[in-house]
Amino acid sequence: MSEYIGHDRNGATIGLVEKQFFTFAGTDDQFALESGASLGPVTIAYETCGTLNQDKSNAVFVLHALSGDSHVAGYYKADDAKPGWWDIMVGPGKGIDTDKYFVICANILGSCMGSTGPASVNPATQKEYATDFPMITIGDMVRSQKALVDHLGIKRLLAVVGGSVGGMQVLEWCVRYPDMVASAVPLASTCRHSALAIAFNEVARQSIMADPNWCSGHYYGKTKPGMGLAIARMIGHITYLSDESMRLKFGRRLQNKSALSFEFGADFQVESYLQYQGNKFIERFDANSFLYITKAADYFDLAREHGNGSLVKAFSKTSARFLVVSYTSDWLYPTYQSKEMVTAMKKNNLNVSFCEIEAQWGHDAFLLPNDKLNNLMKGFLRSAAHEPASV
Amino acid sequence: MSEYIGHDRNGATIGLVEKQFFTFAGTDDQFALESGASLGPVTIAYETCGTLNQDKSNAVFVLHALSGDSHVAGYYKADDAKPGWWDIMVGPGKGIDTDKYFVICANILGSCMGSTGPASVNPATQKEYATDFPMITIGDMVRSQKALVDHLGIKRLLAVVGGSVGGMQVLEWCVRYPDMVASAVPLASTCRHSALAIAFNEVARQSIMADPNWCSGHYYGKTKPGMGLAIARMIGHITYLSDESMRLKFGRRLQNKSALSFEFGADFQVESYLQYQGNKFIERFDANSFLYITKAADYFDLAREHGNGSLVKAFSKTSARFLVVSYTSDWLYPTYQSKEMVTAMKKNNLNVSFCEIEAQWGHDAFLLPNDKLNNLMKGFLRSAAHEPASV
Repeated sequence: MSEYIGHDRNGATIGLVEKQFFTFAGTDDQFALESGASLGPVTIAYETCGTLNQDKSNAVFVLHALSGDSHVAGYYKADDAKPGWWDIMVGPGKGIDTDKYFVICANILGSCMGSTGPASVNPATQKEYATDFPMITIGDMVRSQKALVDHLGIKRLLAVVGGSVGGMQVLEWCVRYPDMVASAVPLASTCRHSALAIAFNEVARQSIMADPNWCSGHYYGKTKPGMGLAIARMIGHITYLSDESMRLKFGRRLQNKSALSFEFGADFQVESYLQYQGNKFIERFDANSFLYITKAADYFDLAREHGNGSLVKAFSKTSARFLVVSYTSDWLYPTYQSKEMVTAMKKNNLNVSFCEIEAQWGHDAFLLPNDKLNNLMKGFLRSAAHEPASV
Repeated sequence: MSEYIGHDRNGATIGLVEKQFFTFAGTDDQFALESGASLGPVTIAYETCGTLNQDKSNAVFVLHALSGDSHVAGYYKADDAKPGWWDIMVGPGKGIDTDKYFVICANILGSCMGSTGPASVNPATQKEYATDFPMITIGDMVRSQKALVDHLGIKRLLAVVGGSVGGMQVLEWCVRYPDMVASAVPLASTCRHSALAIAFNEVARQSIMADPNWCSGHYYGKTKPGMGLAIARMIGHITYLSDESMRLKFGRRLQNKSALSFEFGADFQVESYLQYQGNKFIERFDANSFLYITKAADYFDLAREHGNGSLVKAFSKTSARFLVVSYTSDWLYPTYQSKEMVTAMKKNNLNVSFCEIEAQWGHDAFLLPNDKLNNLMKGFLRSAAHEPASV
């Protein structure tokens, strides 16, 4: 297990962290998947920050969204340009306080940041899986995370926390392993994708699969389907923002202030921003992983999988206490979807706090600095750990 | 001019119509465009329904949106499967009553349904213009429509009516040719695209231009960039619907009711609906026209073009009376954008009626049957024509 290194009590970050790998296998080296297919052995890349206490009761598992990774906070090297993706939340004295809690974050199954995914080498063929990789589900992701938690010797997580697709994993954890979850924080999330969310994902997938370089997924070692993936990311980015945030951030401001180009280039700043985001994404993300993870998110349906169609029944399987957070301008997973889960939780007499945070930044708001969220998180974890409020 | 043929007083349609063509040219056969480029000669395909009265005072110009055409109502042949695109609104006794009004609808400049556009043959080269076609603006579209109205000998239009990009043309008509417009109805429209609307259009354009069959626009006589155009259309379709309408229309219903496929096919009905819409579109629409028209819509900015940045100043140029209509679930051109134009109109003491119609169908609502809109339109046109209310 990695040590909590280089922590500066006055610093804004948790210091240096390192990526670790845990490999496991089921029967005959195969991890049986919900689809009926199997995969193995499976490697999970993860990072930890903070110190696991004696009785292993202070672990918080942070679950990342679509394109995230295990690098949740801190730096790998002292001169890294940027810390982990949720450094604003995870660190000494922060919302998830690494002076108190042992934070785990693992790259999800199917991704391309160290955990087994379609770009990994299939031991059976010694070639990348590509689209021979089996379809995975949010349930499969959580089952692989559970293997990691077992490996770390942790019997019960103090909390599972995550936004967006990470929030789906939070919910899955609670109902699948109720004895292992004391509390849970799904942020900007949903119990199932709406038709609108599926539609955006499907168009994004179509744009990848329409790229002739996709080659039915077998592009490793060749030219990548960069254009298709960039367009998929651009579509995603639009859904992460909001009408208001785009108006404030870009409005109709031109790239070249003097005039319209009367050409098919990027006239408006919002156009070049999206192109930049699309191009940046293809440097760091695998197109097949995008396909598999979005499909897993579309398939996710907590009520269908765990409640025979009833969300109330699904939540009857957990006893975790919850902090549910939504954002006013999130139109990908709007507040009414968080309220649906809160209603079903309350019908089970679960201990639930719900907060809709006023924010103009759309779905992305959960990743942006927000004192309100940090304070909510602090208070909630303190209460989950049965610490006195004054600590 | 086409006659109003085959009208059945008890029938639901205006009967048979025929497409006509008007060709015009400016100096040296060139129509000077707002970009500084020129084009010529220009052909405009148009249809008319109803009868122009003696003093030519009963003409209503209907302006179509992105992918529409001149075929606004009625049938070409008795056995046509479908009538024109706004047959629910235009016909005897309907919202725009062809027993009273002479309705004109023209395919917009840059389109591919009979009017000059990138797929037309450039007389100078005897080849299709492709991307040698000059960039056009909403102003250019309206200027070409004005040439048609002059040709028809009409000095003043009783009304200009249109939704979405058609509504932009309505607004442009009012401020550009104030003496020629007695009244105007912009539906589900805007004085300028938001960053969000530009973003969706840009991603759609990128998907066309990323298709290797696009060949920088020179694909005529070769394989068309069908995949790119289909994806562009799918993106568009999502923006025309709403979260609510998609939930009601599709929800999470599966194509194959028995189970998830665990493959990258269309599992959900919303996915196959979008794929169907995308594929249907490529049979009837030209990818380059999509590029040119969306760019014209993105460029449109009534305040910048006609008011030095002030919308109030822009509307000071018209004396038309207005009926402005928005729809509650339209998130492409939300109600606040209609309210902006209404505010600017009122500051000019214009005669304005504004109605936000409760509708769950998103931006597309203006094309769907709606008694409220039909009645509003009837009353508004009657009042514009100074007919007594009881007529």
